[in-house]
Amino acid sequence: MEKYFKMSYLIDIYSSLLTDKQLKVLEYYYNDDISLSEIASMLNISRQGVYDTLKRAEKIISEYDDKLNLLEKYERNIELIDKLEGLCEDKESLSLIKEIRENL
Amino acid sequence: MEKYFKMSYLIDIYSSLLTDKQLKVLEYYYNDDISLSEIASMLNISRQGVYDTLKRAEKIISEYDDKLNLLEKYERNIELIDKLEGLCEDKESLSLIKEIRENL
Repeated sequence: MEKYFKMSYLIDIYSSLLTDKQLKVLEYYYNDDISLSEIASMLNISRQGVYDTLKRAEKIISEYDDKLNLLEKYERNIELIDKLEGLCEDKESLSLIKEIRENL
Repeated sequence: MEKYFKMSYLIDIYSSLLTDKQLKVLEYYYNDDISLSEIASMLNISRQGVYDTLKRAEKIISEYDDKLNLLEKYERNIELIDKLEGLCEDKESLSLIKEIRENL
């Protein structure tokens, strides 16, 4: 999993523990690939302000995930689900697997 | 899922966000089914102290889970995994399913 993909998962999981501003900055930067300067002008704050908010939000997320280990769990389960999918052929099993994957 | 089983799952997931004392009280009470008075005497604190610690720890866990929804996700995935298990017969699939279940 590459860095941006991991960060998208982490943002998704931990969004409710962030302020609206922290979440917005993270989403613009990681999900929408918008530069710090552009985000600054969109939110009408300084580039340094955007950078500080980004770093603070990343720190909050990484501290929670160091404790809860949800990314590691997720990656392991995706790996297992991929293997399982390769073994199943019937429509019903594949549809259950799809649902589990989306709910991980 | 009944209340004690749910609480065991929640304690397991969120243990790292609690103090040692909060975790110990929760585990004694929910996992080991020890009474408040007995816990008080084991930890050498008052029964009221045990009660307050228990309520505080439950509140922390429930506030986090209101935000992160991990119990709801877990229950849904267990339901899906149970159905999937009923459809699979080969040893390899069943062993992967077992591992996913343990890692949820």
